Amino acid sequence: VVHPKQPPKASDRSPTDEDATVERIGRRLRSALGPPPPGELWSGDDCAVIVSASGATLFTVDAVVAGVHFDSSLVSMADVGWKALTVAVSDVGAMGGRPTHAVMSVGAPLGTDLERLVDGVIEAATAWRCPVVGGDICAANDLFVSSAVTGLVDGPAPPVTRAGARPGDGIFVTGPLGASAGGLRLLRAGVVPEPGSPDAALCAAFRRPLARLDEGVAALEAAASAMMDVSDGLGLDLHRLASASGVGVALDDIPVAPGATLDEALGGGEDYELLIVVPDETRLIEQFAARGLRPPVRIGRCTDDPGQRDLRGVTMEPTGFRHRL
Amino acid sequence: VVHPKQPPKASDRSPTDEDATVERIGRRLRSALGPPPPGELWSGDDCAVIVSASGATLFTVDAVVAGVHFDSSLVSMADVGWKALTVAVSDVGAMGGRPTHAVMSVGAPLGTDLERLVDGVIEAATAWRCPVVGGDICAANDLFVSSAVTGLVDGPAPPVTRAGARPGDGIFVTGPLGASAGGLRLLRAGVVPEPGSPDAALCAAFRRPLARLDEGVAALEAAASAMMDVSDGLGLDLHRLASASGVGVALDDIPVAPGATLDEALGGGEDYELLIVVPDETRLIEQFAARGLRPPVRIGRCTDDPGQRDLRGVTMEPTGFRHRL
Repeated sequence: VVHPKQPPKASDRSPTDEDATVERIGRRLRSALGPPPPGELWSGDDCAVIVSASGATLFTVDAVVAGVHFDSSLVSMADVGWKALTVAVSDVGAMGGRPTHAVMSVGAPLGTDLERLVDGVIEAATAWRCPVVGGDICAANDLFVSSAVTGLVDGPAPPVTRAGARPGDGIFVTGPLGASAGGLRLLRAGVVPEPGSPDAALCAAFRRPLARLDEGVAALEAAASAMMDVSDGLGLDLHRLASASGVGVALDDIPVAPGATLDEALGGGEDYELLIVVPDETRLIEQFAARGLRPPVRIGRCTDDPGQRDLRGVTMEPTGFRHRL
Repeated sequence: VVHPKQPPKASDRSPTDEDATVERIGRRLRSALGPPPPGELWSGDDCAVIVSASGATLFTVDAVVAGVHFDSSLVSMADVGWKALTVAVSDVGAMGGRPTHAVMSVGAPLGTDLERLVDGVIEAATAWRCPVVGGDICAANDLFVSSAVTGLVDGPAPPVTRAGARPGDGIFVTGPLGASAGGLRLLRAGVVPEPGSPDAALCAAFRRPLARLDEGVAALEAAASAMMDVSDGLGLDLHRLASASGVGVALDDIPVAPGATLDEALGGGEDYELLIVVPDETRLIEQFAARGLRPPVRIGRCTDDPGQRDLRGVTMEPTGFRHRL
């Protein structure tokens, strides 16, 4: 399996599982600072949910780091800027919200082409209608870009969390998976894809991932019971959603992007397609059609055995990218 | 002059001036993403100002980076966590606001003591009443912690920007300067200060800076015309405020922290005391007294010669920390 995200060189300290670390830290923060007011959600999902006079406000942060999330020899600085904002915006979309504002923090080695980085940020900010209203630039040995994004959920429906899936609900994705990992594989092999070819589409998926904002809103309006974006690989992310919801999953089929492999689709990550769980499948399909969106792809259903993680009757490993911390 | 912030090793590329870079990027963002709506302020100040149903919302981000903002051999991981949140909270205080929520992004080398880092974050979040509601942890070769903080300004007065100082206004700071730079100097020299000594106070100022939130609110209520926090050194930060306001400055006296030098007070940075400019000096002093705060220290006044940067009649250089970008 090719992972778009490559961990830095390991030391002799043993890695701790990322999910366990994140969960433990979230628990410590909530116990020291919380509990959140009613209706709010602090840590553990794609975004935090804050209740304000404007309604349910979403707040999230995500970072991309040279050598971990991207290889500066394979992507342009504009690609880095695009991706850095888009991955955080995607978290807002994954709860059914739309982004309102972003602030970005850049650590840059001397000589970094900040102008090109800003080109990509501006392209993404324009595409996602998410103005970057502030930021901070400092010196660093390795380039990193951290984006914090606020968002709003329109209407009375609460944001869609990871924890609401119920047995019997259908599981959908917004598009084929593995494109980003396949694109990275081609770029690493030095492939220069022909414009318009499937290879070019794979490389574009790696360099310029999309935030599925309209799809997220459509899912919210179709009363999705759970949702998240596929950032670390379907195997791992679906496992996270199922664990948060306390359900099992039985998958029938995984849509694989043309030119990508099933392993890349299951474990590659960085596709940023949405993983949507709904009790009313017809309503979801109709909502997507009404908005002129590509139809969502049904990949399976939730079951009442919380330990079940099956693909066509065979147990799946929760493969995907985990940071070694 | 000892700078608490040390730039990483230079390459053979020539450094660009940080302020010019930041200003150019801010200008590009504003021109590409449109002028902010009336009453809003995007980039160029301590925080962005967003108008929402809750009033004037502040939004800021700041990062600390190993080897740039701290030396892991001189500070504990808890100190890093404290500082990472406090420096962003300080930006909210510097506009007269109080923090509402934070999200934090951590890039950590394998084996980083994240539990201790979180200890410091929780201490700061508790001290500043700023719950950390979400975050992101990823692998990185050098530790960085980026904090995005939202805030609110109570009451009808707009947030205090850097740009409102007028000739004749008095210039104040909330306390003596240079403590942080002095503390770093002692720590580098291997000094182990006696508890309760002035040396211990200097080291604490470096390790555990304070956000002057009550002071910021008092200044707002005293109708301060301009304000910012002293993060990169008084010489540089006051130059920035004066330039944003289009005024000159004539300083009489700089309060130097016991054990620190005048150079450290002028150019050391990371004190996070507030720099406050007011037309009505008595009102400021009364507001501080009414809240039981340490009296603000008058250091000089604004003049109508926009090029003037004088200390006791002698031209000052705008010394302080600038990132080499």
